[in-house]
Amino acid sequence: MIATKGYAAQSAKTPIAPFNYEHREPGENDVLIDIQFCGICHSDIHQARNEWGNALYPMVPGHEIVGTVARVGSKVKKFKVGDIAAIGCMVDSCRECNSCKGGDEQYCERGQTVYTYNSKDKLGNLTWGGYGNHIVCDEAFVLSVPKNLDPAASAPLLCAGITTYSPLKHWNAGPGKKVGIVGLGGLGHMGLKFSHTFGAHTVLFTTSASKIDDAKRLGADEVILTKEENWAAKHAGSFDFILDCVSAEHDLNTYLALLKRDGTLCLVGVPEKPATVYAFSVLGRKHLSGSMIGGIKETQEMLDFCGKHNIVSDIEMTSYDKVNEAWERVIKSDVKYRFVLDAKTL
Amino acid sequence: MIATKGYAAQSAKTPIAPFNYEHREPGENDVLIDIQFCGICHSDIHQARNEWGNALYPMVPGHEIVGTVARVGSKVKKFKVGDIAAIGCMVDSCRECNSCKGGDEQYCERGQTVYTYNSKDKLGNLTWGGYGNHIVCDEAFVLSVPKNLDPAASAPLLCAGITTYSPLKHWNAGPGKKVGIVGLGGLGHMGLKFSHTFGAHTVLFTTSASKIDDAKRLGADEVILTKEENWAAKHAGSFDFILDCVSAEHDLNTYLALLKRDGTLCLVGVPEKPATVYAFSVLGRKHLSGSMIGGIKETQEMLDFCGKHNIVSDIEMTSYDKVNEAWERVIKSDVKYRFVLDAKTL
Repeated sequence: MIATKGYAAQSAKTPIAPFNYEHREPGENDVLIDIQFCGICHSDIHQARNEWGNALYPMVPGHEIVGTVARVGSKVKKFKVGDIAAIGCMVDSCRECNSCKGGDEQYCERGQTVYTYNSKDKLGNLTWGGYGNHIVCDEAFVLSVPKNLDPAASAPLLCAGITTYSPLKHWNAGPGKKVGIVGLGGLGHMGLKFSHTFGAHTVLFTTSASKIDDAKRLGADEVILTKEENWAAKHAGSFDFILDCVSAEHDLNTYLALLKRDGTLCLVGVPEKPATVYAFSVLGRKHLSGSMIGGIKETQEMLDFCGKHNIVSDIEMTSYDKVNEAWERVIKSDVKYRFVLDAKTL
Repeated sequence: MIATKGYAAQSAKTPIAPFNYEHREPGENDVLIDIQFCGICHSDIHQARNEWGNALYPMVPGHEIVGTVARVGSKVKKFKVGDIAAIGCMVDSCRECNSCKGGDEQYCERGQTVYTYNSKDKLGNLTWGGYGNHIVCDEAFVLSVPKNLDPAASAPLLCAGITTYSPLKHWNAGPGKKVGIVGLGGLGHMGLKFSHTFGAHTVLFTTSASKIDDAKRLGADEVILTKEENWAAKHAGSFDFILDCVSAEHDLNTYLALLKRDGTLCLVGVPEKPATVYAFSVLGRKHLSGSMIGGIKETQEMLDFCGKHNIVSDIEMTSYDKVNEAWERVIKSDVKYRFVLDAKTL
């Protein structure tokens, strides 16, 4: 077994704290990774605090993981010791249904997606995430990080990156398209980078005038301040696609009204409460949809795209002794734009 | 001016009653139609009672109109006296925007769609609908009814028909697709006929076991009773497209869960209250959308399709002295499946 030290939540109400646990001995298809960096995703907090009602404790959060390959099983083909490797939100799935075979393991039709943490693997063992110094994973769910990318700033690509890349690709963000990104946080800042790099006319919606300069630096052609009176009316019916990265409650009808016919408002943030949607808001063949991370093949494609275009996340490095403080700042959206934990501080 | 007798609502609270009014003298592009039949659409009642908050009185409802051409303007090309002609929900639009030019006048980007009633034409005059014995309309918004179709049973095609035909076409209902129709009423029964004729595996969702036989006669391959316990679980993730024809409040999350990835739940009924939609319900690239009638070109295509396949509405004939009673029955869904008013009874 691989003795591992990390940070875990023991209950919904207690801060996360140092925790020792074990990963399985790597099997013939497994890769043992010495974790270097792990991004902090808002869903780490939601899950650790059982805000989605499905918490399993002790919980070692973290699904934006980058590290070096320390050992490989006898049948591992894609990796060798010393490679920079990454793990995102999933570590296994049924691998047999149409979704899994089609490269959409996150939509496993048998519901057998094994998440990187707060999940049970096929043997029924709890999975342990990236807030630790080791992880063991079947190579089928391990990604390669392009050598030219900064490993720390690459970590958030594994969730914030793929979560925005996948829908922007799916709904054809690109030249001639007008694309909106709602909210400038961890997801939104990656959305701006990808939409801009894909060649779409990219518009940020934000409540905060202080974000205008940053938004333009990150790729926005235009910034719309949604606190101004009647801001929406002049943009009605003009967007091909809007990626909604906001997890706080907000009115979706307003954004649906901004879409062209056959346009799509795609949710990637998950507000706690359901949204209120008027039938009239979608009647003009407007679409309300949503997207969940991306499959393994597409995640590798995204990483390779990032390598080619030198795209990483804007990050703030932090250390494990400050992780609970960092979580509080994530809740207040007080980070530009993703915290990354340095495993050396464990 | 064309002296016309019909039925009008004078306020939200009074029954509709006999009313004399005038249509404009037909211009060079106009067609004067002697109305034979007009279908009763639930939206007639919503609008006469100001349930959508935009009522203009006096209101002569009716947008499922079939009659004979009585006079044509000097420049009219498509019609001659004696032809069987029809008018649906629109009588004009800007005709210049991309939507109008593209044949989607119902989505006029300038908001200049002129509805058949409860609307103002380009001169600011109130439009009068089909609950009367004449109507005058620019030939651009007049449809031809195939000679082999029963004119009375064709009237509901102009709203219930196109409202279901257009989305089923748009979302590619056809061989190899599993299509659900929610609700067996005026819209739903046309949805079954079209989906079946397009070759899709067609499933009716209904609360009422008494509708099974009729649904199968109308084209359903399968009927799912939504009052049975746990009815939804066994159909999860299996539908390509669901056409929701229900105007009463109901839970959309349940139907979203029945969709395959990239599937669409399309609303054509308009419940008074907004729906409550969970982000998790759409995260698997499920789509909530909606559709509004169809353009003039597509409406003619639908009528020609009906002519070719001998499709009309199942109707119950009624007379103007019983129109308020018929409205009450429409509200109770007590009609199989559309009332049609005979203008001879005016």
